Amino acid sequence: MTRVLDLDADVVELTRALVDIPSESGEEGPLADSVEAALRALPHLTVERIGHSVVARTMLGRPERVVVAGHLDTVPAAGNLPARLDGERLYGLGACDMKGGVAVALRLAAALTGPTRDVTYVFYECEEVEGDRNGLHRIATERPELLLDAGLAILMEPSDAGVEAGCQGVLCADITVRGARAHTARAWMGTNAVHRAAPVLQRLADHTPERVVIDGLEYREGLSAVSVRAGVAGNVVPDSCVISLNARFAPSRSPKEAEEYVRGLFPVEQFPPDAYEFAVTEAVPGALPGLDRPAVASLVGVLGAEPRPKLGWTDVARFTGLGVPALNFGPGDPSLAHTPGEFVPVAQLGRCEEQLSAWLS
Amino acid sequence: MTRVLDLDADVVELTRALVDIPSESGEEGPLADSVEAALRALPHLTVERIGHSVVARTMLGRPERVVVAGHLDTVPAAGNLPARLDGERLYGLGACDMKGGVAVALRLAAALTGPTRDVTYVFYECEEVEGDRNGLHRIATERPELLLDAGLAILMEPSDAGVEAGCQGVLCADITVRGARAHTARAWMGTNAVHRAAPVLQRLADHTPERVVIDGLEYREGLSAVSVRAGVAGNVVPDSCVISLNARFAPSRSPKEAEEYVRGLFPVEQFPPDAYEFAVTEAVPGALPGLDRPAVASLVGVLGAEPRPKLGWTDVARFTGLGVPALNFGPGDPSLAHTPGEFVPVAQLGRCEEQLSAWLS
Repeated sequence: MTRVLDLDADVVELTRALVDIPSESGEEGPLADSVEAALRALPHLTVERIGHSVVARTMLGRPERVVVAGHLDTVPAAGNLPARLDGERLYGLGACDMKGGVAVALRLAAALTGPTRDVTYVFYECEEVEGDRNGLHRIATERPELLLDAGLAILMEPSDAGVEAGCQGVLCADITVRGARAHTARAWMGTNAVHRAAPVLQRLADHTPERVVIDGLEYREGLSAVSVRAGVAGNVVPDSCVISLNARFAPSRSPKEAEEYVRGLFPVEQFPPDAYEFAVTEAVPGALPGLDRPAVASLVGVLGAEPRPKLGWTDVARFTGLGVPALNFGPGDPSLAHTPGEFVPVAQLGRCEEQLSAWLS
Repeated sequence: MTRVLDLDADVVELTRALVDIPSESGEEGPLADSVEAALRALPHLTVERIGHSVVARTMLGRPERVVVAGHLDTVPAAGNLPARLDGERLYGLGACDMKGGVAVALRLAAALTGPTRDVTYVFYECEEVEGDRNGLHRIATERPELLLDAGLAILMEPSDAGVEAGCQGVLCADITVRGARAHTARAWMGTNAVHRAAPVLQRLADHTPERVVIDGLEYREGLSAVSVRAGVAGNVVPDSCVISLNARFAPSRSPKEAEEYVRGLFPVEQFPPDAYEFAVTEAVPGALPGLDRPAVASLVGVLGAEPRPKLGWTDVARFTGLGVPALNFGPGDPSLAHTPGEFVPVAQLGRCEEQLSAWLS
């Protein structure tokens, strides 16, 4: 049975109601049903359902259109349900990432029957999992016309109720160092791939990532080993050592440039032929901040806060790829995302709602 | 139903029969039943069953007693059952490690009704698994008198039908390097434990193990990383990196000395307090070759072959710990142990049987 969402409720109560409808990635159906039902009850919106994503559009013929988007899914629960209001903080799974932002967007969708810009509200599934399941990706693939007519996209991702512009790109790669197995009692008959990997780790330790300034914002890069995998058995010299890297690069580099940069850091010449391999496993572009675009400048002006660079990849990069400038603006501290103790400050919920409402009225 | 072993059969047929009774560690019951039944049928032996181990002793009042021992268990099957005779090689699980040696010992037990030295035959369980399940350990703990009256122990472990004397000791240790977690988009807020571990790997790569000569035999030492474990998630800077070491040390070092030696290799001073930990997980002494002991010298003289140092730990060290000199002498190439294609040369089965039979007659 579809739970009824009261979009006239206070934004804090609405956030609480959203948190209390579980929607771990892949299980967004019930929440999408509730969101769809609430939006279909609003005569000023045209509503479409695509998978477990919901798109609602005003059709006022305004010269400008903006997307206001938020994902419905959360990471798995960690003993943090149901929602709990504690003074000025609303705690609970997804309160920060990003049901607080979804609540703000739903409130705007209900309240703004005649916004000064046409608005496309997008509530989508599977943001927290692999990219090919992402609801925004599915909409961009199956119904791109629902997104392409916008001049700006606002992602309600937690950004401490400030504007976070652009985002870093991500490059993931595996470095495999190979050796030859042997019994440890006769270790000299083999070649230990772990020992051989020492210069790779040393290079990572020695590397100082760059700081790239774009439109006055500093995009600090990063290069991290996120795992090392080696080991055959307790008495065997390992013949393989795989170091997985996660690099964050400034949006001024393309993924190809980032790959060449990272690839070039390692002392390949120290390894015998076939003993070293560098394989990219994922490469997604960042998003330029686009502060020079009129729609972005207008919103930033109204909000009256200095934009900051977004650290971490978000779907703003997907919009940038579609040619739609995008930024993050939502309630909640992004560093609390995915933590069991995540919460959203009540004050930020109210402020985000008021500021966007003012900009669209 | 207990399978009947024919100890009067040719040693090759007997090996084949032993291979064809599966006895992966922990599952030695049926094979132990067959061995026990065959030995109880021999009136010149006193037989005892301890768990899935069987001890059979001649009681002739000879001035000297020797142990002839072999383990009944094998590592798990790898598509190498049943046994298969191919020309001069008998293939199959355990053919090399060490049902060939067990067959030789069973043949001696049956044929030598009046050996010149009293013999204690030991067929034991769980040699291939953790030491506290080892059948020889259990006998030494529960019934030490069954072993302590011997002047020499011959382990029928594969040694290419030559004498392998003494064995290396083993030291296993974990080095844990600690850091602090962070999101990879803000890697500078953490400390990458994998990057920090670089000097540990470099030290392993730079180290040249020693070669120690005892009684003319060279015990080559070894120091190997056998695994590296690090990794929290694909977008998290790891806060821990555990490097597991397996060191083999000459039997002239005690485990304590070996620990101090290995511990001292690493540049602890390069790490902040609490960022580096060295923990010994296993330390077992080696066995001195003991070539100067009369019983050992006598056997080596009869066999007419130069003793070699044993590389790899075997239960000879357990006998040495009991004060009983011990050596390895058995059919099969030790480097084939635990390989799917293990085999035992037919010629070595016959030679081992003949030589031990001659020494004991």
